[in-house]
Amino acid sequence: MKLFNIQSVDQTIKSTIQAKIDNLNKPKGSLGRLEDLALQICLIQRTLDPSLAHPCHLLLGGDHGIEREGVSVSPRCVTWQQMINFTHGGGGVNMFCRQHGFKLRIVDVGVDYNLVGIDGIIDRKIARGTRNFLYEAAMTEEEFDRAIQIGCNLVDDCIAEGCRVLSIGEMGIANTSPSSIWMHQFTGIPLADCIGAGAGLDTPGIRHKYEVLSTALANYQSNTSSLSPITHIRYFGGFEMVTAIGAMLKAAEKHLVILIDGFIMTACALAAIQLYPAAKDYMIFTHCGDENGHKRMLDAMGANALLHLGLRLGEGTGALCAFPIVDSAVRMMNEMNNFENANITKYF
Amino acid sequence: MKLFNIQSVDQTIKSTIQAKIDNLNKPKGSLGRLEDLALQICLIQRTLDPSLAHPCHLLLGGDHGIEREGVSVSPRCVTWQQMINFTHGGGGVNMFCRQHGFKLRIVDVGVDYNLVGIDGIIDRKIARGTRNFLYEAAMTEEEFDRAIQIGCNLVDDCIAEGCRVLSIGEMGIANTSPSSIWMHQFTGIPLADCIGAGAGLDTPGIRHKYEVLSTALANYQSNTSSLSPITHIRYFGGFEMVTAIGAMLKAAEKHLVILIDGFIMTACALAAIQLYPAAKDYMIFTHCGDENGHKRMLDAMGANALLHLGLRLGEGTGALCAFPIVDSAVRMMNEMNNFENANITKYF
Repeated sequence: MKLFNIQSVDQTIKSTIQAKIDNLNKPKGSLGRLEDLALQICLIQRTLDPSLAHPCHLLLGGDHGIEREGVSVSPRCVTWQQMINFTHGGGGVNMFCRQHGFKLRIVDVGVDYNLVGIDGIIDRKIARGTRNFLYEAAMTEEEFDRAIQIGCNLVDDCIAEGCRVLSIGEMGIANTSPSSIWMHQFTGIPLADCIGAGAGLDTPGIRHKYEVLSTALANYQSNTSSLSPITHIRYFGGFEMVTAIGAMLKAAEKHLVILIDGFIMTACALAAIQLYPAAKDYMIFTHCGDENGHKRMLDAMGANALLHLGLRLGEGTGALCAFPIVDSAVRMMNEMNNFENANITKYF
Repeated sequence: MKLFNIQSVDQTIKSTIQAKIDNLNKPKGSLGRLEDLALQICLIQRTLDPSLAHPCHLLLGGDHGIEREGVSVSPRCVTWQQMINFTHGGGGVNMFCRQHGFKLRIVDVGVDYNLVGIDGIIDRKIARGTRNFLYEAAMTEEEFDRAIQIGCNLVDDCIAEGCRVLSIGEMGIANTSPSSIWMHQFTGIPLADCIGAGAGLDTPGIRHKYEVLSTALANYQSNTSSLSPITHIRYFGGFEMVTAIGAMLKAAEKHLVILIDGFIMTACALAAIQLYPAAKDYMIFTHCGDENGHKRMLDAMGANALLHLGLRLGEGTGALCAFPIVDSAVRMMNEMNNFENANITKYF
């Protein structure tokens, strides 16, 4: 796998940033989480005057071999149908990109349908879906490397446009399954506690999903000689998920602010952090949904999501909905008076 | 007191609205609280195509006689200093109004300072602060009626500009004190559990605040012949708070969407609902802060705030920060494809 040069944020300027925050025209700490966000973003960008210029959203689509085992309530054709729908502007991700001024890139990295030539879809297809990890690795080492590199290149394209904040969403029927497995593998939380209803499974459906995933894990452990984080990721991941990991790592290397969406993107962030722990400094965890285990995964990462709106649509909609809060934090740093220039009696 | 004609929202169109929401291009319920918000706003506006046109924010300023008892960490001069600061655009409320396209009206209804002629401040001053409710009613019946009427007139001005969504904030040193008393009076929660740190009191400060407020309550009960919700409101309220109540009631009468900010505005909403229970249908509770008791007050009202960001600045900043979430809900109704026109296999 490609190597990244990801540094922890430079803490030596923290006291200078905090002093600016504390001298803004408000009781100390009274803007709560906005102040925490402002500190994080200033550390990421090594500045007292942060910027969220040219926000970009990557919508990554891919299908999953494990879908053949009936682990999802939706059929795999929904992946390509939705990818096309996004090009018409009527999906959740489209609305919220328009609302918040994000440039949307819709990227096919592994959809099981021929999308070549469809206007608005960037063709980076690696294969028509991953293999079925109940029996074999979802992707080869070469496919894994390609997915990582595609993520890097997409981020480079965003940076070339001036992007300072990256949001990532996914479209991939059945991708809660690899997410649950990664959560189990990287946190040690029992598999059963990592599995939820996805887009609407009932109790027997969840039991079936558990049986498929636990069998897949047992097969993996008995068939694979060297178990490492990279092997976990390659064996179970979707192309859209590994591409997201590549994008997150490149974004961290380049000091972008990274908005981490719901359950699936949190699992990708968790995987990325296994490879490069310092990448976490660049991540803002935006939304904790109702998917069973999401809060436990965030807790295991020491992360506290900004929003709790019960979203479970995917596509990165949680990250997009949280953007204006992040923007408020940046505006606080750039637009709010301090006590001296406001002529206010400093009180506290 | 002026009478209002406030109707509960018309539930007969609820199933039609819900059917539109359920047929949007997403798994049923997958946009979580956005779907709840969309339903509420459509009910308020009696439409399937809601609008948040011309958002307005009222920033109401007033001083409190009870401030003389040392119940606040900040001196009363901060009220007028901040009012002037807001006219320069450098306060929290200014940033967030700019960010979200709100027209800001800064209104002096009872600041203890001569603000006449200052550009950007609307002069509706009733008196230079309320009386000290430790000893006597904060305001007369006539002053109460004037404050309610000022709130109505401000909302009429907003409506004349096409406003469909109203947000209200306050600037009034010591106004957590009447808020705590109202919370106690209207929910029955013990006074001690209704008192918090305001903008930064320490433990002895909170104990002193409790002693002052419990003495004030005892004096009130022994000196006042007829105890009613209106008497409670008049005896303890600030001019900015009663004006807010008038604005909320007029906005409910006129079917506006009302964004309810943090602890103090929630207390005003609680008071408004005592007078007209149907007003609650028009209110969106936007932010639950860390002020001790705020969550208990919301629970007592059966309300669940949208955001939990630890804000305690006042000025309506919580309501403003929540606006884009509300806007997302409205965009969902107006911009999202349904299953038929998106050609998606309906899955759930």
